[in-house]
Amino acid sequence: MAGYSHDKDDHLRRLRRIEGQVRGLQRMVDEDKYCIDILTQVSAANRALQSFALALLEEHMAHCVADATARGGAEAEAKVREAADAIARLVRS
Amino acid sequence: MAGYSHDKDDHLRRLRRIEGQVRGLQRMVDEDKYCIDILTQVSAANRALQSFALALLEEHMAHCVADATARGGAEAEAKVREAADAIARLVRS
Amino acid sequence: MAGYSHDKDDHLRRLRRIEGQVRGLQRMVDEDKYCIDILTQVSAANRALQSFALALLEEHMAHCVADATARGGAEAEAKVREAADAIARLVRS
Amino acid sequence: MAGYSHDKDDHLRRLRRIEGQVRGLQRMVDEDKYCIDILTQVSAANRALQSFALALLEEHMAHCVADATARGGAEAEAKVREAADAIARLVRS
Repeated sequence: MAGYSHDKDDHLRRLRRIEGQVRGLQRMVDEDKYCIDILTQVSAANRALQSFALALLEEHMAHCVADATARGGAEAEAKVREAADAIARLVRS
Repeated sequence: MAGYSHDKDDHLRRLRRIEGQVRGLQRMVDEDKYCIDILTQVSAANRALQSFALALLEEHMAHCVADATARGGAEAEAKVREAADAIARLVRS
Repeated sequence: MAGYSHDKDDHLRRLRRIEGQVRGLQRMVDEDKYCIDILTQVSAANRALQSFALALLEEHMAHCVADATARGGAEAEAKVREAADAIARLVRS
Repeated sequence: MAGYSHDKDDHLRRLRRIEGQVRGLQRMVDEDKYCIDILTQVSAANRALQSFALALLEEHMAHCVADATARGGAEAEAKVREAADAIARLVRS
């Protein structure tokens, strides 16, 4: 079971809202809305995606990473490294 | 006419692809996919949104901002300030 | 003359403050301060560097880019493209 | 002892290099260098600060957070939350 399973409904709600934001962007482009207003909505969608990622990451650390570090050894190291790589991708994207 | 109008089809194609990425994220959560794989897809969607924003911004500077600065005066200053504020929101999101 | 020349003293003051923040980080590491407190200071230094970059960029657009677009032609296009590339590097860093 | 203590020399070396980059920025502003070249150096300094932060964070997760989650309870939860908050600040800065 994935670490985020008990918040699944909440995650799906967030993602549906983000899908709505992206469809809203299509509508804005289609209706020739002002560039700056479109850019403001892009920033909002980006922030929403980041908030989703940060919530998922926190659960991952609290469950999968914590379970692995409790067992220790090479798997613990691998899980921490894997989480650190995912964080680096988020920070740089 | 918005500055990005001649690239409208290209922008709409990008945004539909991003919508597909967000729907793919919903599917991953729904099927209890591994957190780290979901986070990798979030980073990809974030980068795609940023690329869209940067393309839109470049056209805005080449058309709307350039037209305003060619006319000069208070409107030119306001357009540059407005673009700078949008860039700041993108950098910080 | 660079577009930011009239704000030179202000820029130098900001950069000296950032240099102080980075020296403060060295002191924290040297004194084995708590990781999370160090990370908080890194975020502050990053934000200060971004604010400096955004101020510089706004002046660049108000002067160098505006002058080039007023003259038009290939140089105008090149200046807008160059500024857009610098913005992309900031957004992605 | 802080979790990053065994890499202290490496961290201090990185931070001294970043201090050098910030002093280089002051020299560029002082000598009226071209805005775009300065912005390129700001992006490099930002990336260097982020790499330092990510290295520190990985060690923090491998030591402090892992120790706390091995003991479990409220302290484990608090450590994960604290790390998640620091990651959020990095992602948003």
